[in-house]
Amino acid sequence: MADLTQFSLARTTAVLTRTPAALDALLRGLPDVWVRRNEGTSTWSAFDIVGHLIVGERTDWMPRVRVIMVSGEAQPFDPFDRFAQEKESQGKSLEQLLDEFARLRNWNLAALQALNLQPEDMDRRGRHPALGVVTLSELLSTWAVHDLTHLHQLSRVMAYQYHDAVGPWSAYLGVLHCAGHSAP
Amino acid sequence: MADLTQFSLARTTAVLTRTPAALDALLRGLPDVWVRRNEGTSTWSAFDIVGHLIVGERTDWMPRVRVIMVSGEAQPFDPFDRFAQEKESQGKSLEQLLDEFARLRNWNLAALQALNLQPEDMDRRGRHPALGVVTLSELLSTWAVHDLTHLHQLSRVMAYQYHDAVGPWSAYLGVLHCAGHSAP
Repeated sequence: MADLTQFSLARTTAVLTRTPAALDALLRGLPDVWVRRNEGTSTWSAFDIVGHLIVGERTDWMPRVRVIMVSGEAQPFDPFDRFAQEKESQGKSLEQLLDEFARLRNWNLAALQALNLQPEDMDRRGRHPALGVVTLSELLSTWAVHDLTHLHQLSRVMAYQYHDAVGPWSAYLGVLHCAGHSAP
Repeated sequence: MADLTQFSLARTTAVLTRTPAALDALLRGLPDVWVRRNEGTSTWSAFDIVGHLIVGERTDWMPRVRVIMVSGEAQPFDPFDRFAQEKESQGKSLEQLLDEFARLRNWNLAALQALNLQPEDMDRRGRHPALGVVTLSELLSTWAVHDLTHLHQLSRVMAYQYHDAVGPWSAYLGVLHCAGHSAP
């Protein structure tokens, strides 16, 4: 059981380690039509998404890990500002954001490793300001799935730019029929 | 107008060029839990998806471009076998599939460039066996969006493996609420 929990941490960091290079390979040097356009009013472009991932690296994931390790349930997490990137990304290029995301992710994974978390730490509890009690393993799993949910969004936002260009093939392309299913 | 059409070809190949490296960065070396598991009976794993992309490179996209250039509407495209990868990927590793996809995509993009397509070629027509008349620009646009729809699927399949692990955060992770919206 302990081994399984430990393996789960390795599985999780396996995804977290790969996301920056995957986004870099997908996005660096792409024409602006793919990078700067969104799905309409109050939606995000690829540029906005990378900016949001940076904010998560700065303010959300590792700070919350530390709150759990130091204070447990006693100190609720700070809320995650889902719109901070609107200001923080201003004046930057996508390439700068990709570099920044990769650097912060590397630092955070090094910091995570330095904590030398043990299998029994995975059940430590924290308090989410809206969701209530959560565990360290849930937080780490969410960090990885958060990467995947934004990769999911990114592929949809990019595909949307060609929703007319594909003509009748639209019927066969599921990504063009994704309603966004964003969480509240 | 002609310039815009030409630009569209460059925009399209900008995505097509990047997909193999993006998938490679995301998937190579990942534990099997991320690569070999699917979303349940008759669904695809990451391994299946890369195999499907290979089949498209072999049998679908460039062969259809050539049918349009040579025969126009007179010769309907061969149907795309969406299940050929079940046999063709057997006994291979994910790493072999990633290498094969990258090699085939490179060859196909070189072959596309060698056609030296002109803006006026983009309106050439072909006949899809089910969808009817389509244009060359629609075929090329679909090639790119087909990459994106499978990246969309891939992120969902991977996230699904952690649908319990994230605990209450599931409510905030849209990718876990994607119904698949596959085309018929």
